[in-house]
Amino acid sequence: MMSSPKKAVLLIHGGAGTLLRSKMDEVQEAKYRGALQAILLAGEAQLAAGAAALDVVVEAVRQLEECELFNAGKGAVYTAAATHELDACVMDGSNLQAGAVAGLSRTRNPVLAAQAVLRHSKHVMFVGAAADALAASHGLEQVAPDWFGTKQRFEQLQRAQQTDAGALLDHDGQAGGQAPIVEQSKFGTVGAVALDLQGHLAAATSTGGMTNKAVGRVGDSPLIGAGCYANDATVAVSCTGTGEAFMRSCAAFDVSALMAYQGLSVQAAAEQVVLEKLPKLGGAGGLIALAANGEFSLPFNTAGMYRGHVSLGNAPVVAIYRDEA
Amino acid sequence: MMSSPKKAVLLIHGGAGTLLRSKMDEVQEAKYRGALQAILLAGEAQLAAGAAALDVVVEAVRQLEECELFNAGKGAVYTAAATHELDACVMDGSNLQAGAVAGLSRTRNPVLAAQAVLRHSKHVMFVGAAADALAASHGLEQVAPDWFGTKQRFEQLQRAQQTDAGALLDHDGQAGGQAPIVEQSKFGTVGAVALDLQGHLAAATSTGGMTNKAVGRVGDSPLIGAGCYANDATVAVSCTGTGEAFMRSCAAFDVSALMAYQGLSVQAAAEQVVLEKLPKLGGAGGLIALAANGEFSLPFNTAGMYRGHVSLGNAPVVAIYRDEA
Repeated sequence: MMSSPKKAVLLIHGGAGTLLRSKMDEVQEAKYRGALQAILLAGEAQLAAGAAALDVVVEAVRQLEECELFNAGKGAVYTAAATHELDACVMDGSNLQAGAVAGLSRTRNPVLAAQAVLRHSKHVMFVGAAADALAASHGLEQVAPDWFGTKQRFEQLQRAQQTDAGALLDHDGQAGGQAPIVEQSKFGTVGAVALDLQGHLAAATSTGGMTNKAVGRVGDSPLIGAGCYANDATVAVSCTGTGEAFMRSCAAFDVSALMAYQGLSVQAAAEQVVLEKLPKLGGAGGLIALAANGEFSLPFNTAGMYRGHVSLGNAPVVAIYRDEA
Repeated sequence: MMSSPKKAVLLIHGGAGTLLRSKMDEVQEAKYRGALQAILLAGEAQLAAGAAALDVVVEAVRQLEECELFNAGKGAVYTAAATHELDACVMDGSNLQAGAVAGLSRTRNPVLAAQAVLRHSKHVMFVGAAADALAASHGLEQVAPDWFGTKQRFEQLQRAQQTDAGALLDHDGQAGGQAPIVEQSKFGTVGAVALDLQGHLAAATSTGGMTNKAVGRVGDSPLIGAGCYANDATVAVSCTGTGEAFMRSCAAFDVSALMAYQGLSVQAAAEQVVLEKLPKLGGAGGLIALAANGEFSLPFNTAGMYRGHVSLGNAPVVAIYRDEA
């Protein structure tokens, strides 16, 4: 299948949730597929030109943030206080360097803020106004805090608050059973993992969190080893789902540990985490995982996950529902 | 050695660093040893009375926070802006529930705030003013932001800023070699792990971070799997050291993964992480690790680590330097 002797691969996701075909509008579905397809094609071109995996995942996530369809950057969901708090993380598998930000409210592209932390700081993670300030000090565009919102997201918040459905989205802090998912739109995070022609892996994750989340809450997305992890020795992983269960599981790092210590394939490791371990903690969602050998897996335990992958020289593949490739 | 047929164990640490015997004042050293000893005795009494591991580690860390000698709670180090930002995490090995807070500036005992998150919130982690507000809403004592400081800590900040020595404490974002450590006092975090008579494990970690740290920086202490982890199936771990390397390594969870997936003993797993893996990322520090079978390990790659352990029915053991038991 490969036209190039060297492998280069990009995987992306745009969140997981109910995503039932029966409830999806045709036009809306076409928009999602088109957005994923375009981002994969752009990433494939970067990889073909020899770009580093880290740059490719950052650019893919930046584009996902710019797209209002996805819950990250523009189009992020609202907190319970009708504000936005954005989190992101990037990790370079070649040297285990990482950058993470949580609780941004002014930086247009959270993934670029995470990249700035990786590049410019001795530290790995910044939260709140200091994270926005760091991003601004490196020239990243700042926007008004209400810039991230959309009419659709605000209506989702209102529905969540009227029905108290927001509470249903969260695990209840007890093990056992999956959290019920009442609305696909509340359940998003975007991410990308890539393998470049130099053989390096990288991962990036960005999110607006969960609709109606408490102010100050941080989920798994900006946490190394929870929602994002990359290590050239094993795998690059980006997660989406009920963040608390992914945090308590160290889900992204666990995929790597299962591969490194038990010799599991990326598929076996990723499926064990998503299909066996996370449900025991009430964790609903999925992840994308790309091994150093180019093999990959995109498992989820929800009805659907916006996802796609492209291998250099091949056509991109995008999917939403469970019954797709 | 055990007078009880059932095992119950408590391990505590008060930070790692240069801690050279040649530089330690006798009176100061006696204070450290006395504080550790007293906390171990109190914890042993709790364990003997059947207290849950989670309650024992929270109380041990609360006492470490109250002690000005240690860099957590009262006596926390200063940020570059001469403020305090406190982080803490607790985890219950019996159900993998966890609570974490970062960037507190008003809650007297950060570990109690983390416990409140575990007990009362659907979420796992809160940062900044919202974390203080959550703690206050559950009746936890709030103090003025300057309450945490001491004269000694402020002088440490001034020395760090005059000499730019603070920068030396941080890994430089590159792999290779340990970060130089120029002052023991800048390098603290406290923590506890316990095994109770019911066979459950728990871990707690609390810190003021690093002297002269950037405002908004979050280290490993409040991050599940980085600076704190507990799982009845394997081990309870609390870390101290250059937080960034512990975050990039998922150090606490890695100890658990090495035990679960490779069948390593707690000692072998903890030493692999502290003596082999962390130094490759410039990580200096140590951790305390207590296995479900009661075996434990307290490895560190610095000159010393304030530490102690007690097994029910035995006298507490405290140590500071490398050449002690």
